Amino acid sequence: MTQDTIKADWIAVDWGTSNMRAWAMSASGTVLAEAGSDQGMGQLARDAFEPALLAVVRDWIDGPTTVIACGMVGSRQGWVEAPYATAPCGTLPDGLVQAPTTHPDLSVYVIPGIKQISPADVMRGEETQISGFLTRNPRWDGVICLPGTHTKWVHVSADEVVSFQTFMTGELFDTISRQTVLRHSIAADGWDDAAFSEGLDMGTSRPERLAARLFSLRAKGLLEGMSGSAARAELSGLLIGTELAAAKPYWLGQQIAVIGDSSLAKLYVDALATQAAPATQVNAPAITLAGLAAAYKRLKG
Amino acid sequence: MTQDTIKADWIAVDWGTSNMRAWAMSASGTVLAEAGSDQGMGQLARDAFEPALLAVVRDWIDGPTTVIACGMVGSRQGWVEAPYATAPCGTLPDGLVQAPTTHPDLSVYVIPGIKQISPADVMRGEETQISGFLTRNPRWDGVICLPGTHTKWVHVSADEVVSFQTFMTGELFDTISRQTVLRHSIAADGWDDAAFSEGLDMGTSRPERLAARLFSLRAKGLLEGMSGSAARAELSGLLIGTELAAAKPYWLGQQIAVIGDSSLAKLYVDALATQAAPATQVNAPAITLAGLAAAYKRLKG
Repeated sequence: MTQDTIKADWIAVDWGTSNMRAWAMSASGTVLAEAGSDQGMGQLARDAFEPALLAVVRDWIDGPTTVIACGMVGSRQGWVEAPYATAPCGTLPDGLVQAPTTHPDLSVYVIPGIKQISPADVMRGEETQISGFLTRNPRWDGVICLPGTHTKWVHVSADEVVSFQTFMTGELFDTISRQTVLRHSIAADGWDDAAFSEGLDMGTSRPERLAARLFSLRAKGLLEGMSGSAARAELSGLLIGTELAAAKPYWLGQQIAVIGDSSLAKLYVDALATQAAPATQVNAPAITLAGLAAAYKRLKG
Repeated sequence: MTQDTIKADWIAVDWGTSNMRAWAMSASGTVLAEAGSDQGMGQLARDAFEPALLAVVRDWIDGPTTVIACGMVGSRQGWVEAPYATAPCGTLPDGLVQAPTTHPDLSVYVIPGIKQISPADVMRGEETQISGFLTRNPRWDGVICLPGTHTKWVHVSADEVVSFQTFMTGELFDTISRQTVLRHSIAADGWDDAAFSEGLDMGTSRPERLAARLFSLRAKGLLEGMSGSAARAELSGLLIGTELAAAKPYWLGQQIAVIGDSSLAKLYVDALATQAAPATQVNAPAITLAGLAAAYKRLKG
């Protein structure tokens, strides 16, 4: 069966700032096909979303088709604004928001994000992953960590998001390693486990010293010939360690699940292990899809 | 007297990464003229330094002329590498390094920076400011803070640099406010004293929460309509507060001098005052010039 003969019963879409991914789904929840594009929310004007979606999924459409989408596609700058639900709240909020379309067979629904009033915080997309996780692990209580550009720590209990906190750790790593004086000291890739451990240890034990430790990476490159890959790993350890220190009220004594890209999630699991906090690693795309499927099921109810 | 009739007895130069500033000096230490350019070390190949200097100071030269320079001009990527002195050491290290020149009347000497072995750290340029400060305040014991892109805290005793530590606070402020998602929330200028105080209080009391507090600025913009200038001031307070928390072993119970650009130095003085740590503010260009003059005097003495 080639891709252009596939017809979807419905379509699942994960649409973030920098790219989008779509799955053709059967009524029973089987993945029939998968495709994506780099047409992320960040580069699309409001009326460019439908053409960008059709460019990826047009061949899957044969008659009226429902699309369920999550992520930044529902932000103020997205296809349609899906107002935040307010935590504490269920992970599958009511109120999917329909996006305006011109294609006669297309009905597009966007999942709202979740906001927290105090301290002020927001998520878009992660609520769907959490929903997918709880669909697979009903009545699970604990803390879910979703590492990424903006890492989230989410306290979940009784199938609700109780509270959450965002750390800009991933974006700080990218920005510091590419845009500051440390770009001369930090390699674009490569790794060093010992340097990661040293950074992690420093970050967890003396988190307040971050801005000073950053410049040490430059000085160690100049004075001790520290390699670019060791500096890269130490920076990662330093930032993740500092985050773990601040997120301690979340994870201490809790059941922990880490959802995310495999290598980054693995770093968090390893880092938590050093703090005597065992965590389960969960594959992200499958969980996102489970969350989108749960939203579809509820819509069709 | 117009500038092109001025003849210098010697020339003082402060040559950093992004620009250079030169002063025509009389033998008695009077400033006869001042000029500068944006030909910083960062954009110059080794053989481009002499032409860049002459473009600024050529008219001041009338017979053999000594130039004393400090800053990144002495780095490995500079005009000539002036190897670091090692702390603890005097603030006016021996071993000015002569740069290669082709102009028959020009003798250029570069002041070495200072390194610290453990924890690894380096300075270039600040040693000259400290030297200038001690020339004006002989036998001064205490801590000198030099705020900037890479803020230095320097413990000075018995006319020596005992130890120091660099914080990337200024560069983090620029990078975070311009290159991350916070660029949507932070204004390019504007200020809010209350927001600065709130950030400062948060940074000094809970320094380990920096990466989480950063994202709060985004969320407060989205959910509470926080203004871009308030977000800018709160970010500044947050970063300076976090730095003060980490630098506490330096400033606690010490005599403190803050050397730097007037508005930034003022923020540090105000921030230290909230920690019951009174500090004296010192004008930077005058102190740099005093340090260059001390080096010239020692060379000729």
